[in-house]
Amino acid sequence: MRVAGLEVRCDAAGNLIGTLEGSDPTAPALMLGSHTDTVRWGGNFDGVIGVLGAIEVVRLVQESGRKPRHTIRVVDFLGEEANDHGLTCLGSRSMTGELTAADLDRPNSHAVTLGEQCVRAGLDPSAMVRRGWLRNEVSAYLELHIEQGPVLEQQGVEIGVVTAIAGIERLIARFIGQADHAGTTPMLDRRDALAAAAEAVLAVRQLGCDAQGAGVATTSQVAALPGSPNVVPSAARLEAEMRSIDPVWLDAAQARLAGEVTDKAADLGVDVEFDWVHDNQAQPLDDSLQSVIVEAAESTGRSWAPIPSGATHDAVHVARRVPAAMIFVPSINGRSHCPEEMTKLSDITNGIDVLAQTLLALDWY
Amino acid sequence: MRVAGLEVRCDAAGNLIGTLEGSDPTAPALMLGSHTDTVRWGGNFDGVIGVLGAIEVVRLVQESGRKPRHTIRVVDFLGEEANDHGLTCLGSRSMTGELTAADLDRPNSHAVTLGEQCVRAGLDPSAMVRRGWLRNEVSAYLELHIEQGPVLEQQGVEIGVVTAIAGIERLIARFIGQADHAGTTPMLDRRDALAAAAEAVLAVRQLGCDAQGAGVATTSQVAALPGSPNVVPSAARLEAEMRSIDPVWLDAAQARLAGEVTDKAADLGVDVEFDWVHDNQAQPLDDSLQSVIVEAAESTGRSWAPIPSGATHDAVHVARRVPAAMIFVPSINGRSHCPEEMTKLSDITNGIDVLAQTLLALDWY
Repeated sequence: MRVAGLEVRCDAAGNLIGTLEGSDPTAPALMLGSHTDTVRWGGNFDGVIGVLGAIEVVRLVQESGRKPRHTIRVVDFLGEEANDHGLTCLGSRSMTGELTAADLDRPNSHAVTLGEQCVRAGLDPSAMVRRGWLRNEVSAYLELHIEQGPVLEQQGVEIGVVTAIAGIERLIARFIGQADHAGTTPMLDRRDALAAAAEAVLAVRQLGCDAQGAGVATTSQVAALPGSPNVVPSAARLEAEMRSIDPVWLDAAQARLAGEVTDKAADLGVDVEFDWVHDNQAQPLDDSLQSVIVEAAESTGRSWAPIPSGATHDAVHVARRVPAAMIFVPSINGRSHCPEEMTKLSDITNGIDVLAQTLLALDWY
Repeated sequence: MRVAGLEVRCDAAGNLIGTLEGSDPTAPALMLGSHTDTVRWGGNFDGVIGVLGAIEVVRLVQESGRKPRHTIRVVDFLGEEANDHGLTCLGSRSMTGELTAADLDRPNSHAVTLGEQCVRAGLDPSAMVRRGWLRNEVSAYLELHIEQGPVLEQQGVEIGVVTAIAGIERLIARFIGQADHAGTTPMLDRRDALAAAAEAVLAVRQLGCDAQGAGVATTSQVAALPGSPNVVPSAARLEAEMRSIDPVWLDAAQARLAGEVTDKAADLGVDVEFDWVHDNQAQPLDDSLQSVIVEAAESTGRSWAPIPSGATHDAVHVARRVPAAMIFVPSINGRSHCPEEMTKLSDITNGIDVLAQTLLALDWY
């Protein structure tokens, strides 16, 4: 950021903010950004190209000798990926005023709260829960990101103009059965909590398959107690999530899943408790900004297509405060959140060029 | 043991052995015993009543003023329950010469071998792998134990005369799928390792249900990687076991399960590897000793029934060397390997009385 001529500071939530002052001190800022954290065993492109791309745009602006009218802010948001407390987008939630005291009370599996973890990381939790910045401080937010799915590659399109970001409902289901000797207890006398959890894993998957593109559903973890080889599991825990850009589908899916899992568990003599965590609502992105991106793509000769985002992004939270838009570039084989995650350099430079052209167009207003 | 007049020593494998010398130094010993370790979160009766019951039998013999002809040995076997290295009956395997150097090389989940763990516990692994004691040292082994299942209680019978002990085949299955973004990857493009593991959990259960009493099958644990809420699981691991007193059923069940799990995984684009661990073979118990127990039960007015054991016991290993038999007493509601495990005091004293009468009858020979 400093090499590109940005003035760098860190806010209370650990967001790294680089600023290039505009020529008109009364004009609101234009903000570009993304994140540089990754999931465990993740790849090298998710988030990073949006931050490096934004810095490159500033470098290009400086190189052109042009002095932009609006102040440009480049943000590297802290902790976009889900942390051990089950919360995504920590930095953007704080910046936009969405972070709550209840969020900071969330425990991880070692009963350490998110607030305590922030203190350990040198942050001040009391300053993180705050009034978000005002609408007239920033007039637009743009985020360049890899698609993380196969659609642009399959369509042979260079630029994705994101229409909306999926909402996410997360689920922890706890199954309570009965511990019995695994050698002596007749099969039909058992209350096997792990068998009930296995039924739930398949119900989650079927829900996603039946959606036929309207949503997806994933179980990420299952664990059983006591875990001894000769004991019928007395308890099991399952973590799952569902995503859709359609809030109606999400509501219906939640109800269907709860009903099916409860029924299957009851057939096995197992009780089940659900703990739903609403991660974020489905969020449409700004129509006018989408049009500006489309013009930028067309003026530079790039093919483009509208695309919804199944992944969540910091833009979800920013979009509730100011007009926001996203530019996607293709992911090879649609792979993401894995070491094989890859985007061609030419696709990244396409994205940076469209981001730069969009910024310049907005600076005219 | 000392209060009951036994001379106490500990062998190389940590087995606690109490000896009451018989009047005839040329007669082989009669051995009674069980174990005092428990599973995690287990109950207070599994194993313990067999050790305390044997000590009580010696106390009764001493109280009667009678000097037995045969030497009586009471053994508290070390580590009967499955340890973290997946091996059951450590003490009785060592005493009977079945423990192998390969067993001692088994790692736990922290890559510590069983041999290293034995050293930490003050044992000498090199002395544990040994030639078992000779057939003419001991002429019979008797073990009193709770049933750990519901059969005796349901039949209203006081004494179970065990006919055979089930063989156990244990399975670790590893599922290899592909990590992908859980929000952006279409359901049908996924290779979800946890979904394949869930299918396997249900296949294991179905195998047990279809056996209709000829065998049981249990999955005790499942875990997935990477376990992040927004990543399709790339790998999963499952631990299961099957038991039967019928080796033919066990062989057929292994083949059926491997085929079904492989097919279900393939439908999901997931590869699977199986690691079968043979715990112990099905073991019939000695017919003559069973007859002596039946006579002891009838002569003391106790109702009895023949019963197979779905649980494994130290008697499995002892029975390969010398004639061995087991006496079961009822478990309330068939519960075991859980804190609710319970056997009425009157049922325990019934068992001890039959054990004592059986020992006295054998001492006549």
